[in-house]
Amino acid sequence: MCEANAYIVKDEREELVMESVDTVEPEEDRKSFRLVSIFGEQKIIRGRIRLMNLVDHKILFEKNE
Amino acid sequence: MCEANAYIVKDEREELVMESVDTVEPEEDRKSFRLVSIFGEQKIIRGRIRLMNLVDHKILFEKNE
Repeated sequence: MCEANAYIVKDEREELVMESVDTVEPEEDRKSFRLVSIFGEQKIIRGRIRLMNLVDHKILFEKNE
Repeated sequence: MCEANAYIVKDEREELVMESVDTVEPEEDRKSFRLVSIFGEQKIIRGRIRLMNLVDHKILFEKNE
């Protein structure tokens, strides 16, 4: 499976938000994203995308300025 | 491998921008993204993320409003 793990970067530390993320979709406000895992779990994360490395299965978010 | 294909959605049609994308990183202007494929190919795409489906290996971009 090709899901990824989502992290929020705080003070240059990566904090796991959700494992096995399948879907990433911006919310209407454009200041947060809806994450859905392959298990159907959902989470809204406030922030913006900092970096995605799909081969490393990583999506990094950071706080909006 | 867990790379994805990047598309830009124009008039609800998906137009392939790059295959086998590994890295997606926002540019300084926050209005475009740098894509890097697993082959090292690079492209800058103007627009914002509309939807990512990692299990389907799909990243959809759309034009900024």
